[in-house]
Amino acid sequence: MFKPFCTRRPLLSYQRLFSTSLQCKKAERQAILVKTPKGTRDYDDKEMVIRQDLFKSITKVFQRHGAVTIDTPVFELTEILSGKYGEESKLIYNLADQGGEQCSLRYDLTVPFARHLAMQGGKEAQMKRYQIAKVYRRDQPIMTKGRLREFVQCDFDIAGQYDPMIPDAEVLKIVSDALDTVKVPFYIKLNHRQLLDGLFQVCGVPQDQVRSISAAIDKLDKMPWEDVKKEMVKERGLSEQIADRIGKYVLQQDSNILDILEKDEVLMQNEDARKGIADIKLLLDYLDIFQVKDRIRIDLSLARGLDYYTGIIYEAIQTEVEGLGSIAAGGRYDNLVGMFAGTNKRGQPKTIPCVGASIGVERLFSLLMARQDIDKVKSNATQVYVISVGDGLLRERMQLVRELWDAGIKASFMFKNKPKLEKQWNVCEKEQIPFAIIIGKDELDNGQVRIKDMRTKSNQGGGITVARKEMIDVLKDKLN
Amino acid sequence: MFKPFCTRRPLLSYQRLFSTSLQCKKAERQAILVKTPKGTRDYDDKEMVIRQDLFKSITKVFQRHGAVTIDTPVFELTEILSGKYGEESKLIYNLADQGGEQCSLRYDLTVPFARHLAMQGGKEAQMKRYQIAKVYRRDQPIMTKGRLREFVQCDFDIAGQYDPMIPDAEVLKIVSDALDTVKVPFYIKLNHRQLLDGLFQVCGVPQDQVRSISAAIDKLDKMPWEDVKKEMVKERGLSEQIADRIGKYVLQQDSNILDILEKDEVLMQNEDARKGIADIKLLLDYLDIFQVKDRIRIDLSLARGLDYYTGIIYEAIQTEVEGLGSIAAGGRYDNLVGMFAGTNKRGQPKTIPCVGASIGVERLFSLLMARQDIDKVKSNATQVYVISVGDGLLRERMQLVRELWDAGIKASFMFKNKPKLEKQWNVCEKEQIPFAIIIGKDELDNGQVRIKDMRTKSNQGGGITVARKEMIDVLKDKLN
Repeated sequence: MFKPFCTRRPLLSYQRLFSTSLQCKKAERQAILVKTPKGTRDYDDKEMVIRQDLFKSITKVFQRHGAVTIDTPVFELTEILSGKYGEESKLIYNLADQGGEQCSLRYDLTVPFARHLAMQGGKEAQMKRYQIAKVYRRDQPIMTKGRLREFVQCDFDIAGQYDPMIPDAEVLKIVSDALDTVKVPFYIKLNHRQLLDGLFQVCGVPQDQVRSISAAIDKLDKMPWEDVKKEMVKERGLSEQIADRIGKYVLQQDSNILDILEKDEVLMQNEDARKGIADIKLLLDYLDIFQVKDRIRIDLSLARGLDYYTGIIYEAIQTEVEGLGSIAAGGRYDNLVGMFAGTNKRGQPKTIPCVGASIGVERLFSLLMARQDIDKVKSNATQVYVISVGDGLLRERMQLVRELWDAGIKASFMFKNKPKLEKQWNVCEKEQIPFAIIIGKDELDNGQVRIKDMRTKSNQGGGITVARKEMIDVLKDKLN
Repeated sequence: MFKPFCTRRPLLSYQRLFSTSLQCKKAERQAILVKTPKGTRDYDDKEMVIRQDLFKSITKVFQRHGAVTIDTPVFELTEILSGKYGEESKLIYNLADQGGEQCSLRYDLTVPFARHLAMQGGKEAQMKRYQIAKVYRRDQPIMTKGRLREFVQCDFDIAGQYDPMIPDAEVLKIVSDALDTVKVPFYIKLNHRQLLDGLFQVCGVPQDQVRSISAAIDKLDKMPWEDVKKEMVKERGLSEQIADRIGKYVLQQDSNILDILEKDEVLMQNEDARKGIADIKLLLDYLDIFQVKDRIRIDLSLARGLDYYTGIIYEAIQTEVEGLGSIAAGGRYDNLVGMFAGTNKRGQPKTIPCVGASIGVERLFSLLMARQDIDKVKSNATQVYVISVGDGLLRERMQLVRELWDAGIKASFMFKNKPKLEKQWNVCEKEQIPFAIIIGKDELDNGQVRIKDMRTKSNQGGGITVARKEMIDVLKDKLN
């Protein structure tokens, strides 16, 4: 169990997360404002160790499930992104018009993946792919909560024509496994776009308002029902009566919600609703086999803002730190590839059904940072530091370090002609280098070196003396 | 020894490298142009295996030399990039003005690194860092030569106040080691900005024209002397006499060039030239110890376009494929951090001397692609495919694959209720999955599974039969 990072080590977290703005003040005194752009930040060497470990463990889960990876450009043609993100489209970064094509920074990894699939022209109609890469949103940044304008997404998607709910179940298993690797407690909210559509139809929402009402409902995790209702009625022009009917459904928090819905005769006359419920039931059956069912909570108020979802949708909510929001989300999007792929020879649209999820690694990174004493993280891989006693011996140290490098040993030395012994020890300590090789006049004269294990604080004197030509073997032995 | 990719498998390389434009034609028939922006491209799963292996081997070299990594945003405030790239500045991508700060995509990783160092406020006055990340240049793309508008750079830099030429020598050792890992034959052109400055002074180039003449000289690897001279005289307003004097120096291709320069009494009276020559001589001494000296060719025509270099400069040229250009480049830039860091309490500028290099991985990737039969690359990590004989057995397959996943084994199954046996074998073959686990009614009844090694083409029948509860252990044994 770990504690919310905001209470455990407030100052350091704050400092790290707000490093941009802290530096700002200093920079403002200078002629040129030296900072990163709003909502972006650098990650230093120790933070990068945490991040890369996180990416690596998530990648391991993705690969365990047979995924390959692809890479796509950071920017896309603007029209590729148009009409895919609903009300969020205003947050897209555009490139300046410098002649040539109009481009925008990618907003997620899903639309570029669909564009990539469409460009394969059916060659890759089946694919399990993961991608770990940066995306861009001109949102109001909340750096403490890991909400940045430039942030990394870890996406996993399964594309292909398969039997219902089988790949969907694997995606949820993957989300679950990935979150388990960082040992964060969570549950998964689950809903179905078709169930939601059916429900809206039954309540009397006009077809052309479904997307808009959906977007309002999606705010229920941040706003009380009264405010959402007000928005639907006042801003989106829904009748109060219809809004109340919707409320009766989406506010239900019952673990037997599916049973309740199935007894709702009006709802069950709606084909979309029936299809949605049947899908969820089949999915839960498969999730039981995958031992993920306990994590699932059906939540009719989950709507997801993006336009492209067509089937089940989900969001993983961590329960450790309050107010940090969801840490993974996704759903099925069967028509997105088709929007790019055009039609086949018979004039039928070429579609590739897809289902996927995105892991919110920036928020996981915030959680991991809170658990860690960042100063203790070793960010270099150096195994050996070559130290001289006495007269500098620069050329001799260079010769020695060259032999180590060429033997594949990670080694460093001080870039000084005559470094002080103490300063050399300090580097060993600060950089947490486990071994020192020490040479002085005596060792040189006798064709020897001294090897000292820096991790044993006990007085072991000057280390052990070995013949120069045995140095590599002795070291390799110690390093294994 | 590998062959130039343009002759060895022209069609495939061409197809892959030009996939963007090939797809274009198909896409144009549709309402929306489905392609990646000009000068950018996707990398598919098999190409990503080659790329990630390449990045991994270069990272290994960087880490062997004690480097840590950092991450910086893809875009910077525009004024951070201003005035750093000389005549190349016009190639910078700007973001559209959507309110707020004016930003540009990073042009290299060096300026962001200097900005990062400056923001540390002296805390990290010493650092060996590597960064592997994308940069952006609105250049005319030549996709076949790995010249793209979005491309990856692999940078290694050493920041800190050290004794002369020691870190410089390590950077060149690293370049050499990194290129050796991909077994590409190369040599390194070396020059020194101060030597070049001194040489220009001695020839009579006015101080305010030094940068401009430098940029012209830098084109000597692409243009004959006559054209460069014409450019200096006609376009840049240099007198013909001075141009000829410069020519006498920079056209010299002699392995004893340093000796020749040292006998040049006029040149040796110039302080900058003397300093440059002394640096190079010391560097060569160190490079001899590091066993890199043989790779070096002093080349007075090497100027490097970028504004920020102040000391030695270098470019690694591969000698395998003609016309592919340099595959690594860099130099010393002692004043760049100071441009961001402002002054200390006593009003003195805070400087952090730096030296570094950038490995041209896109060009190395082109070379590697040419060596590889890309179709034979296995892009997934899957070890086991779970196959059913007979009645589909979906739930049983799901149960089995869940056990494998939870035991850390990379496993897949077909997302079908009743998959055909042949199609399941085909996946095994196509995805190069080494083991199949087969279940049918008999196996289920007897609490057994069959394990088949798919790599042995010989007739081994249906594989070996093992008890279901021993399956994980047997598999783990086979996989090790």
